[in-house]
Amino acid sequence: MNDAHWTDSPATLLRVGPGFRLADVDPAATPGYGGGKKAGQADLSAAAEEFDQLQERLYAQSRTQPDSPSVLLVLQAMDSAGKGGIVRHVIGATDPQGVHLKAFKKPTAEELTHDFLWRIEKEVPGAGYIGVFDRSHYEDVLIGRVRQLAPADEIERRYGAIVDFEQRLTERGVHIVKVMLHISDDEQKARLSERLDRPDKHWKYNPGDVDERELWPAYMGAYQALFERTSTDQAPWFVVPANHKWYARLAVQALLLDVLKRIDPQWPVADFDVEAEKARLAAT
Amino acid sequence: MNDAHWTDSPATLLRVGPGFRLADVDPAATPGYGGGKKAGQADLSAAAEEFDQLQERLYAQSRTQPDSPSVLLVLQAMDSAGKGGIVRHVIGATDPQGVHLKAFKKPTAEELTHDFLWRIEKEVPGAGYIGVFDRSHYEDVLIGRVRQLAPADEIERRYGAIVDFEQRLTERGVHIVKVMLHISDDEQKARLSERLDRPDKHWKYNPGDVDERELWPAYMGAYQALFERTSTDQAPWFVVPANHKWYARLAVQALLLDVLKRIDPQWPVADFDVEAEKARLAAT
Repeated sequence: MNDAHWTDSPATLLRVGPGFRLADVDPAATPGYGGGKKAGQADLSAAAEEFDQLQERLYAQSRTQPDSPSVLLVLQAMDSAGKGGIVRHVIGATDPQGVHLKAFKKPTAEELTHDFLWRIEKEVPGAGYIGVFDRSHYEDVLIGRVRQLAPADEIERRYGAIVDFEQRLTERGVHIVKVMLHISDDEQKARLSERLDRPDKHWKYNPGDVDERELWPAYMGAYQALFERTSTDQAPWFVVPANHKWYARLAVQALLLDVLKRIDPQWPVADFDVEAEKARLAAT
Repeated sequence: MNDAHWTDSPATLLRVGPGFRLADVDPAATPGYGGGKKAGQADLSAAAEEFDQLQERLYAQSRTQPDSPSVLLVLQAMDSAGKGGIVRHVIGATDPQGVHLKAFKKPTAEELTHDFLWRIEKEVPGAGYIGVFDRSHYEDVLIGRVRQLAPADEIERRYGAIVDFEQRLTERGVHIVKVMLHISDDEQKARLSERLDRPDKHWKYNPGDVDERELWPAYMGAYQALFERTSTDQAPWFVVPANHKWYARLAVQALLLDVLKRIDPQWPVADFDVEAEKARLAAT
């Protein structure tokens, strides 16, 4: 990272590698970042412009090269961890026309008649797009496992199916960035409590949130299992401490910038005769 | 308008009513606005917050009331008039999660096997959303008419079908704001010329743009015809002078604010027992 406040790359620090243990991550930490909240917010704004420019080039490149790359950000988290804030403050800084956003809800009756990846495939970003999944196919090995919505052998099958699926996307040029926003049990309690205290936040509260909250240890176990089974070289997981919203946003932005810089998209060369077009235009 | 620089409401000034003549509109004018570019940009930023807050309430309201309103902005224009800039600078100021954006391209082979409104219906924003159509069903009476892609009686039929279709949406709670961004022939020439001069803008240039440009008078005639046939009380057209990008953005923002204020969305009342939930949460 060029930025003075980053002391180490979040793409390295936050990556889920061999031996990773979720229980060892402190949700209140700010790994690799030397500044506080104020510096973090300023750095987020400053880097937003670079993010925006790289997005435009990524999109532009795809207009003449249909096989060019795309980016897919997968966001997973316990309720109230800040997925919406990432979409708004990180993704929202760039042109909505180059973003494909999909929030996956509880599957519909029709979706349940298909394999769990059926509805996912339809939302994979095309060349040039930055896709964002707010929840994803990982729900099928999270709530699916914790609430036993499918038999154990089906859950087992899904880990392998996910790895194969993501490998196929990667081979097609989809750069996958998988992020778990990690908040503490106490932080969630405080956030849900605030939603209950403020009438203008009631709409964000769902009684089901407390039901899931009561299964916190089981969810942490399901996350640990999926990290072990699905964090690959091609499509790694990153666990982002998220008790500090400003840090989580900055870190996810940095992860996306890292991918975009590695893609290094280029302005496409005109597929028409520029001088001839100038003459045609001048004649009108 | 509360804003000091607006001397009159754009919702009134720019509206296409009886006797409207497109040829009388000056694309370089800034009707109803007393400031210049600098004031306009500052006012755009200032009003963005209000727009954002109204959007959040619109969305929130729909979460418990599935029959609540939505907004649909229809954008039509000649090439390079600034549709993209509206999406980016006006719509981009609010939460991407509450926006449904659809750019309509040349119809696919499958779309052509259906009525022209088939692909449109699928993209109508659901309750709580702000929908944006970058081009729309109006292409079917614009290029459709100018290039005679359909017989004259079919074009005639479409005007009536559009009015009926939009009336149905309006009855369902979709507030439709139809905007034509109006630039002059010379301004388009300058903008296309800039795209040809700058290699980082080549990707935005399409030789077909000059083909359409050569049919400018025919397009203006097709716009005049559709204004006369489809500007209704429920779904009026607004012609926004767009030679000055800052004015066009400010005016479209004002039109959307006007609709949102008339909707006056309210925070929904909790459909759960707030005190009981506080107790449940405290016990976790």
